[in-house]
Amino acid sequence: MEIERKFLVDAVPDDLDGRRSSSIEQGYVAIDPDGTEVRIRRRDGASTLTVKSGGGLARVEEELAIGDAAFARLWPLTAGRRIEKVRHVIRTSDPRVVIELDVYRGDLEGLVVAEVEFAGEDEAHAFTPPPWFGADVTDDGRYKNQRLAVDGRPA
Amino acid sequence: MEIERKFLVDAVPDDLDGRRSSSIEQGYVAIDPDGTEVRIRRRDGASTLTVKSGGGLARVEEELAIGDAAFARLWPLTAGRRIEKVRHVIRTSDPRVVIELDVYRGDLEGLVVAEVEFAGEDEAHAFTPPPWFGADVTDDGRYKNQRLAVDGRPA
Repeated sequence: MEIERKFLVDAVPDDLDGRRSSSIEQGYVAIDPDGTEVRIRRRDGASTLTVKSGGGLARVEEELAIGDAAFARLWPLTAGRRIEKVRHVIRTSDPRVVIELDVYRGDLEGLVVAEVEFAGEDEAHAFTPPPWFGADVTDDGRYKNQRLAVDGRPA
Repeated sequence: MEIERKFLVDAVPDDLDGRRSSSIEQGYVAIDPDGTEVRIRRRDGASTLTVKSGGGLARVEEELAIGDAAFARLWPLTAGRRIEKVRHVIRTSDPRVVIELDVYRGDLEGLVVAEVEFAGEDEAHAFTPPPWFGADVTDDGRYKNQRLAVDGRPA
């Protein structure tokens, strides 16, 4: 089972490898009161539509490739709930630990969040955040992308 | 601009041409409070995902072909908001007027709705419903598929 932890970052490291970064624009076309979200995303020129279930037993995340024309037609539906960020993928000394550093743009400019993916619980517990990591916001719902898109940056 | 009118039907005509009927299963994966709906549908073995905007200026209806495997993974998300129907497409003496007769199954068994599509306002006004048509429910929101899926058959 994949485990993730999320941290705020105050200062972006200055030795980021630009070759492993990508621009992401995403917006929510529908957010159901039960938590299910349908978002579209353009990343490095490729467009996808993702359906992600909310809570509950049936956890589903389904990503579909869509054409640029479909993306363009759906984009107006996401008005008022969009995020824009540059994602840097950072390898660590442990090959089973990967850091995704999201540097937000646009309305969320200034917000930087590091998401760390672990292969399992053991790796997650053994992880020592690097000195440039700030507060652990793994369980803070306000930093979910859906919430950031709708509500903006937490005060 | 395409114009549609919708009528209840008490008795299904007995001379329906079975060659022009198809089975439709559809369910809603997300219904946004703003009216935007995301539904998946399987019709005659082909699966689609459709995003349809609610009210507002930006009317969008985008249909995407999806694979059977994606349909199967998304289907659990539609629990409690599904409809099942057999659609008969009926030609009329006027080639610009087509009747789609939806015979509902499952929880909505007994409900039959005829939807008539017109090329324009003139055809819509000139249309005389055949004797087997019942009440005009064009403006009755309870007969929208989304509402039927969620709320069931109107009392």
